[in-house]
Amino acid sequence: MQITVMQNVLQANEKKASEIRELLKQKKIFMVNLISSPGSGKTTLLEKSLPILKEKYRVAVIEGDVETDRDAKRLDGYGVPIALITTSGACHLESVSIEKAFSALDLDALDLIFVENVGNLVCPAEFDIGENVKVAILSTPEGDDKPMKYPLLFREASLVILNKTDLLEHVNFNSDNFYSDLKNLKGNLEVIETSCKNGLGIDEWIEWLQNKIENL
Amino acid sequence: MQITVMQNVLQANEKKASEIRELLKQKKIFMVNLISSPGSGKTTLLEKSLPILKEKYRVAVIEGDVETDRDAKRLDGYGVPIALITTSGACHLESVSIEKAFSALDLDALDLIFVENVGNLVCPAEFDIGENVKVAILSTPEGDDKPMKYPLLFREASLVILNKTDLLEHVNFNSDNFYSDLKNLKGNLEVIETSCKNGLGIDEWIEWLQNKIENL
Repeated sequence: MQITVMQNVLQANEKKASEIRELLKQKKIFMVNLISSPGSGKTTLLEKSLPILKEKYRVAVIEGDVETDRDAKRLDGYGVPIALITTSGACHLESVSIEKAFSALDLDALDLIFVENVGNLVCPAEFDIGENVKVAILSTPEGDDKPMKYPLLFREASLVILNKTDLLEHVNFNSDNFYSDLKNLKGNLEVIETSCKNGLGIDEWIEWLQNKIENL
Repeated sequence: MQITVMQNVLQANEKKASEIRELLKQKKIFMVNLISSPGSGKTTLLEKSLPILKEKYRVAVIEGDVETDRDAKRLDGYGVPIALITTSGACHLESVSIEKAFSALDLDALDLIFVENVGNLVCPAEFDIGENVKVAILSTPEGDDKPMKYPLLFREASLVILNKTDLLEHVNFNSDNFYSDLKNLKGNLEVIETSCKNGLGIDEWIEWLQNKIENL
């Protein structure tokens, strides 16, 4: 019974996600689904990226949070439209949430949408929200073993951002093990190492995005 | 439909959790449900705690993981029984998982059981597994804003362990905001600051546990 309902939920989600993907294609909008644990740096990465990207693209952010508007407030003032989805306890965004957020955005005036998913390395990976790419963010203090322990996200992702590299010397993170595990999981997965503190890798991340957007 | 099924799932879980709680009471076992994001230090805290606790108590660990037996392997060699539950993708443990794990443990030979839940700040907080206490672990790199953003766990917890305090000088963590938010969420919530790197607070954590166990 529970399994059947879950299958129905996933099927309904897939259907809506396909509609969203089709709409984004028509509107020539690139949509990025940012997924990570709480505190890996999704919002901070956006704070570093928005000032650069908005010079070239018309950007919006869909901000998913279990509770509070704290992340949305942090991004307020960057001069891009922000649609906040508060899930009231739910552990991930679904495509129907994105459809609702779209009603608060002018899609004809956008080239790029970031979706900051709920902080969770498990559930958001299961739900297609119609995005062009999933980007997994892992921060070095979380440990090199996370791709193998939470493999679905890393299999689903088009890019891994290894964030907080400025902390590498202070934490137990074995880069060799990390890259070796990722290769075993998904051989061709791109990784960009970043630090939002010292700026490392931000330009590479922006270039990666630009390349994707230009090749839409 | 989905809501009804979820209610049924939660009710069935509660019922089983009550049975587990009753069984633990009969057997005079104290059970701790450790909940945190991936990489906050649950396994490392156990690595620091088991050698001390096993001198005084008969301890076992129930190890919950989405995939892999990596954490169970890390705890192997500490001389305590370990029951591994691999959830095959599921984002939390339920009371029925604990019941299954019990079949692999000799409950008559135990005083203390740690359950290391799946790394996830959202879903595990929703599921009573029959534990005596939930302990929330937050590590400083995750940020001081997490209690307000993921409030259910912090409301449910009997204790918060603020881990990786050795990284405080390298990360953006405002202790005043953290304690002020916690007070607003749940005025009387105990916090122990720990570092598994330099050993800070481990004795206080052990004392906290001993006090709970002695007062069972």
